[in-house]
Amino acid sequence: MVQPIRVAVTGAAGQIGYSLLFRIASGEMLGPNQPVILQLLELPVAMGALEGVAMELTDCGYPLLQGIELADSPMQAFQNADVLMLVGSKPRGPGMERSDLIRENGPIFVGQGKAIDAVSAENARIVVVGNPCNTNCLIAAAQASRVARANFTAMTRLDHNRSVGQIAEKGNCTAADVRNMLIWGNHSPTMVPDYSRATVGGQSVADALPADWLHREFDTTVRTRGKAIINARGKSSAASAANAAINHIHDWFLGSGSNDYVSMAVPSDGSYGVPEGLIFSFPCKITAPWQYEIVQGLDLSDDLKTRIQRSADELSGERETVAELL
Amino acid sequence: MVQPIRVAVTGAAGQIGYSLLFRIASGEMLGPNQPVILQLLELPVAMGALEGVAMELTDCGYPLLQGIELADSPMQAFQNADVLMLVGSKPRGPGMERSDLIRENGPIFVGQGKAIDAVSAENARIVVVGNPCNTNCLIAAAQASRVARANFTAMTRLDHNRSVGQIAEKGNCTAADVRNMLIWGNHSPTMVPDYSRATVGGQSVADALPADWLHREFDTTVRTRGKAIINARGKSSAASAANAAINHIHDWFLGSGSNDYVSMAVPSDGSYGVPEGLIFSFPCKITAPWQYEIVQGLDLSDDLKTRIQRSADELSGERETVAELL
Repeated sequence: MVQPIRVAVTGAAGQIGYSLLFRIASGEMLGPNQPVILQLLELPVAMGALEGVAMELTDCGYPLLQGIELADSPMQAFQNADVLMLVGSKPRGPGMERSDLIRENGPIFVGQGKAIDAVSAENARIVVVGNPCNTNCLIAAAQASRVARANFTAMTRLDHNRSVGQIAEKGNCTAADVRNMLIWGNHSPTMVPDYSRATVGGQSVADALPADWLHREFDTTVRTRGKAIINARGKSSAASAANAAINHIHDWFLGSGSNDYVSMAVPSDGSYGVPEGLIFSFPCKITAPWQYEIVQGLDLSDDLKTRIQRSADELSGERETVAELL
Repeated sequence: MVQPIRVAVTGAAGQIGYSLLFRIASGEMLGPNQPVILQLLELPVAMGALEGVAMELTDCGYPLLQGIELADSPMQAFQNADVLMLVGSKPRGPGMERSDLIRENGPIFVGQGKAIDAVSAENARIVVVGNPCNTNCLIAAAQASRVARANFTAMTRLDHNRSVGQIAEKGNCTAADVRNMLIWGNHSPTMVPDYSRATVGGQSVADALPADWLHREFDTTVRTRGKAIINARGKSSAASAANAAINHIHDWFLGSGSNDYVSMAVPSDGSYGVPEGLIFSFPCKITAPWQYEIVQGLDLSDDLKTRIQRSADELSGERETVAELL
């Protein structure tokens, strides 16, 4: 009998949560033989809606779903959690600067970090999805010294997948033909999509696709994709964000499949000149279930080095902004 | 190289569609090695939103997704489609009777049936999810003599799954411990959840659970679950409906797993006294991919027989209501 994995999800009645939970429960995230228990957190005001979501989860008759627990406090929701997916965050309001957003979210992630420290499983793995995810993750990690710092990660997989989608479309092939895309840095406009190692249909992306498109349109499209989705749907990306979160945890647990590496924002150990401690997206190699290493020694162009530095500088600035919370 | 399966989905930018498409594309419905092409239908007014959904599908980098086609007419969306999931329908407005709903939806399913007849794959398999799904399915099938009548089905799997969920909850176990639940009849208040063959933890449900609960609360809960979800979430069931549609097609193609039979509404051949031609939920045995047989010779209590008769009578009445469309 395989022990169930306890998965805590915050913002569970929100749009991303609604796209996420049913796929976790079906086995897509942790594999078809791995039972799960869902521990769902919402604001007190959304507990009614969360009840409805839990009813629908029950109504799916998922063979792997061994329990659903609902909570309006992280101290309750994170109890013995093995995997924590911190999806909920305060969205950017009209006229808000990024620094305002960072400050507004700080207290939420202080509270959640303290709860992780107090009640989660000691080997808990955390992915922060709620933006600004890198710095939210930094804040939470700072409160939770009981859990290994390396277990705190933030999600850049959506940027990674968006890059793959664009390259596949331009190359007139499917996403299965695109390999070894990478994302460096902050999940923000300074993020660096790196196709220097990527291949499409076995051929280097740089050789296969027009340089002009790669330098301009590709970069702009990936960077502004969130806004384009809002314009088309009238709502922000939910299903694709949930999908990326599933990929992030799936690969961390079960390996990266046909790709050499995965893109995850993890605590920097100083690799590639990125200041230690920043939560920074690096190419990571999954070496065993729940184990990763930052890939060393990749040869970077001067352009990539400059942009990686810029993203690191931005994250250093964000760390300054929240210094009193760390 | 496995040939892709073309899956047409109507109402693709709606709530159920949004919960459905990403799971089809990930391989949950047709298996992890089966490429798919999605052919998505929406009303002209929703094509912008549908574009956004397609962008998000691209942003998932699904290895199995070989194409996404968007259309605002069934003649375009159903072109060569192998599987058709007719999700979109006109919802019940305030003060509308069921007979009004049936009449309002008739023309939609006449048009879609004609398109299936004209352009879909000859071996197309159809599941109608949009309500009133049994009679909508009857109408569509009547227009499409080129496609075998038996390939037209309607969804009672949500009722099935809801029953499993309730029994698991009451039996203090998981859905994996519940087997051989059945649904008979119309997807309507006359629907008959039949636990007479069902087991929970290897024990007969009738022995394991209180008779009083089974006769009253269980039945009422399953029957009124849709409304309870709306009350809790403020929105109708979407993710659980999408999940049931995935189960329906998955099992039809890949078998019923640990259950002996599946619950599907299919054209009656007169079994169990149900008038021939009605789209009626029976226990079906999947005998090969895309092949089913209505299970014969099940021993039914007088109570079940009466209720099955009542549901068949209701469907005969619905057939009368739409007689000029058949």
